[in-house]
Amino acid sequence: MREMTTVAIVGAGLVGRGWAFVFARAGMAVRVWDAEPAVLERLPAEIAKMAAEAGAFGCGGSDHAGLADRILTFASLDEALRGASLVQESGPEVLSVKQALFTRLDELAEPDAVVASSSSGLTVSQYTDELPGRHRCLVGHPVNPPHLVPVVELSPGPHTDAATLDTAERIYRQAGQVPVRLEREIDGFILNRLQAVVLAEALRLVDEGYVSAHGLDDTMRHGLGRRWAFMGPLETISLNAPNGIADYLRRYGPTMARLADDAARGEAFNEAAIEKVARAFPVTESDKVRARQAWRDDELAALARHLAERNARHAEGEGRHGGQA
Amino acid sequence: MREMTTVAIVGAGLVGRGWAFVFARAGMAVRVWDAEPAVLERLPAEIAKMAAEAGAFGCGGSDHAGLADRILTFASLDEALRGASLVQESGPEVLSVKQALFTRLDELAEPDAVVASSSSGLTVSQYTDELPGRHRCLVGHPVNPPHLVPVVELSPGPHTDAATLDTAERIYRQAGQVPVRLEREIDGFILNRLQAVVLAEALRLVDEGYVSAHGLDDTMRHGLGRRWAFMGPLETISLNAPNGIADYLRRYGPTMARLADDAARGEAFNEAAIEKVARAFPVTESDKVRARQAWRDDELAALARHLAERNARHAEGEGRHGGQA
Repeated sequence: MREMTTVAIVGAGLVGRGWAFVFARAGMAVRVWDAEPAVLERLPAEIAKMAAEAGAFGCGGSDHAGLADRILTFASLDEALRGASLVQESGPEVLSVKQALFTRLDELAEPDAVVASSSSGLTVSQYTDELPGRHRCLVGHPVNPPHLVPVVELSPGPHTDAATLDTAERIYRQAGQVPVRLEREIDGFILNRLQAVVLAEALRLVDEGYVSAHGLDDTMRHGLGRRWAFMGPLETISLNAPNGIADYLRRYGPTMARLADDAARGEAFNEAAIEKVARAFPVTESDKVRARQAWRDDELAALARHLAERNARHAEGEGRHGGQA
Repeated sequence: MREMTTVAIVGAGLVGRGWAFVFARAGMAVRVWDAEPAVLERLPAEIAKMAAEAGAFGCGGSDHAGLADRILTFASLDEALRGASLVQESGPEVLSVKQALFTRLDELAEPDAVVASSSSGLTVSQYTDELPGRHRCLVGHPVNPPHLVPVVELSPGPHTDAATLDTAERIYRQAGQVPVRLEREIDGFILNRLQAVVLAEALRLVDEGYVSAHGLDDTMRHGLGRRWAFMGPLETISLNAPNGIADYLRRYGPTMARLADDAARGEAFNEAAIEKVARAFPVTESDKVRARQAWRDDELAALARHLAERNARHAEGEGRHGGQA
């Protein structure tokens, strides 16, 4: 029988809590530390709330009481790291804070532990390059909320070794996530680079008056997004020409290149554009934002359920459509 | 009682057939012409096949026999246009062909008919600016297959009048599609501009060895695509900061701007990149491409059903989540 995997969560804000939930849902032992005692005190109530909502969403796992019992909090960082194969750091996105924290984590974590940061904006080389244990450090970047959106970007620094990536990939997969491995680090990783180009072009098209903000959103959710929810952009185009992706790119590449050359750059994120889109998404009360976030999470859970059912169906009839899971 | 809407389909290839199906499914009278008699002869069999598949997908409408009966073919263009409120042109994407065809359509269509092109690559001003009826011409750009992906981009030329846009919008909506209205034309419209920036960045990231082609696709389908299937990119970020979209853009705009400035341009569509992604999506036999396209259509239909059910549920409990349809 395999021993239970232990994971340490360092920083129990929104992201850290999401991670605690994900690992505990998968049956792992979760040990949590936060610099703020008040955050740790609130954790059990926050987890109970997530479990109740996730249950309502039909994706909370089968054993809610057990889930909460598998999450322990510790006042001492040293103690929280004890026995953990994976340390998931989710502290503030401030370089000096990350540097200080990773120095301590590398000193205190188990000798064979992998130390991952949830950072979305800083590459791991920036805060681990000088550490003795730089080979076991990497970024494991989740999407919020991680218990409803499964991708995790694994971004190694120049000193991260392959065994570290293998271990991280195995544990995330065991936790039900979908790890995507980068071969080397790049600013923004993959997901936010794709998001940035879409947002830049979207802001420009709205700001310059080609389309309304809601029209822009409709083009995605009733168009491109219908495919990208179950195929990536590359598989999508591989099916849009009779002889596959090279055929597509040779036919339409010149047009696509022209559009990419003309695409919006960073200046699209200017104050006038921000004010224009803000008028289309007015914030009336923070309660309404929270209600809409709950709606989003409900929809994400329903979509996750839908896609899992479709995959199960295709796994049963494997080969019938040539469909991959 | 409102009179039955009549639509003329000009060009009955893949796109034109999809349109015929969409309008007939909505109970409209559809009159089809194609320059190739053989294409018209094949049409009833193609429509029967689509109806059978759409029935299997659970989204074919309730009356398949009636659907086929509502589609008539005509050897004469003049006759096909008779009584049509909307003419949907889906001919070859060749400027000289479009110019010649639109000259004839403007001469022959009913005086009050709207004349729309399915063109994805040419703006309507390029082939209608000299026509007496240029005020009633526009692009109505669908996504393939239109009976499974509902967005239609309405792109007016500088002479297209508001009444034309209103009529086109009303008829597309009546047909169950989601029209998105551009205020003025731009190369690539909205959807392909968004697709182009994603593909450019995707090709670059794969070509430069940051991530595998399948890893890139996973980042979309298990990450960004999970939201963009039911929210657009702007609503997505409006929920990712406590005080809405302006709050998000002021916090993360500088990072996003940096990524957009560094984003791939048109040169990403180069032959080496094409060959690299083609190795990840090998074309073994055209039968397999067709099987995978059938899988895609099956998934698109299942997703359309899922989203319609979710919308119906929110419409029932309106206001509970502040959810919009």
